[in-house]
Amino acid sequence: MTDQSGASVSEAVVDLLGALSYAQLSGFEALAADAQMTPHLRAKMAFARMGVEMFHRCEQVGVRLGELGMSQEQAMTPFVAAVDAFHERSKPSDWLEGIVKAYVGDGIVRDFYTEMAAHLDPENRAFMTRMLTNAGGADAIVDEVRLAMQGDPRLGGRLALWARRIMGEAIHATQSVAVERDSLTALLVGGEPGSDLNEVGRMFARITQAHTVRMELLGLSA
Amino acid sequence: MTDQSGASVSEAVVDLLGALSYAQLSGFEALAADAQMTPHLRAKMAFARMGVEMFHRCEQVGVRLGELGMSQEQAMTPFVAAVDAFHERSKPSDWLEGIVKAYVGDGIVRDFYTEMAAHLDPENRAFMTRMLTNAGGADAIVDEVRLAMQGDPRLGGRLALWARRIMGEAIHATQSVAVERDSLTALLVGGEPGSDLNEVGRMFARITQAHTVRMELLGLSA
Repeated sequence: MTDQSGASVSEAVVDLLGALSYAQLSGFEALAADAQMTPHLRAKMAFARMGVEMFHRCEQVGVRLGELGMSQEQAMTPFVAAVDAFHERSKPSDWLEGIVKAYVGDGIVRDFYTEMAAHLDPENRAFMTRMLTNAGGADAIVDEVRLAMQGDPRLGGRLALWARRIMGEAIHATQSVAVERDSLTALLVGGEPGSDLNEVGRMFARITQAHTVRMELLGLSA
Repeated sequence: MTDQSGASVSEAVVDLLGALSYAQLSGFEALAADAQMTPHLRAKMAFARMGVEMFHRCEQVGVRLGELGMSQEQAMTPFVAAVDAFHERSKPSDWLEGIVKAYVGDGIVRDFYTEMAAHLDPENRAFMTRMLTNAGGADAIVDEVRLAMQGDPRLGGRLALWARRIMGEAIHATQSVAVERDSLTALLVGGEPGSDLNEVGRMFARITQAHTVRMELLGLSA
């Protein structure tokens, strides 16, 4: 594959951009559905704003794929099944489960793509890093969850269980994405001299560690 | 009520902006839900884009309300029940019903607020007109509906019936919004010397006429 200037574009770059943009498109849809379930107008607006921010990033990734001479639709297609399956298996039953899923799931996805992007060339790595920067809407989520738990002491237990389930499903989904395409598997286990399956294990350990920190911020036991 | 410069702000202006911004927030949520049901990535992106545009307008109306010294949440609150009831009574069963609803419903809502805004002072009227300008995403909807009907000749009949139901529900919802607040009823029947219930009848006749034109564009019988 070659980009507009004729330079070669690695399959791994196109696959990562495709997977990331479909994750963002689905994230937008999921956050909008959370907004629809949310009874408070203040929180509704906050979740809608976060979802819209995710869609804008999806569009920016589309522009980047266009610069590389690639169709965003084609780049997203191989990852539709794995991402849709994640959302299918983790349908929230109320708005609090929805936003805990948005916060926990988005964090894991963000960490995973950051790990994967570390193996890319500097220009594509820099682009991925920009796309994965926290958009800031997450603070509103932390506030809403903490506020809701103040009013209902038993809520913390239910949401902690739910967050653990999301963690499991998200790890499963990111692994599925990684093995979906040879290019990504190669990136993961062979991206750098000496990296191997032990490195993959360490990567998931780092992602789990970051998850624990996010759970503490929410006031939930990991 | 007074704005930041101390000028008096009519209740009708605040009510219209509040009703419009909640209609846009719900429209965003409904379009995102349609995107989620849509199997084709091209159409999915188009509906998401339209929904995001609607949310941006909701935010612009929020900025305007802020300039007038009003809280957007407070201004939206009286209209939540009527708008939610509309969406509750017109849940699409597939993505084509969803986008026909978005197109037909958004058109009626747009026409209704344009009619209402005609009775406002020039500055607020100009603002409402800007917010109600067609964002352009509607063309994508017309194309998708026509394309789907080419592949399934019986689809036209089902979607025409559905569009008629949406028309009825939307007229019911806009009437509910108008009678929800004395200020809006007064705007509608007493906005100008000589306006009366006959004028309200003529307004709904104009809205119905515009609906018929939209149905023809979709290739559906009204």
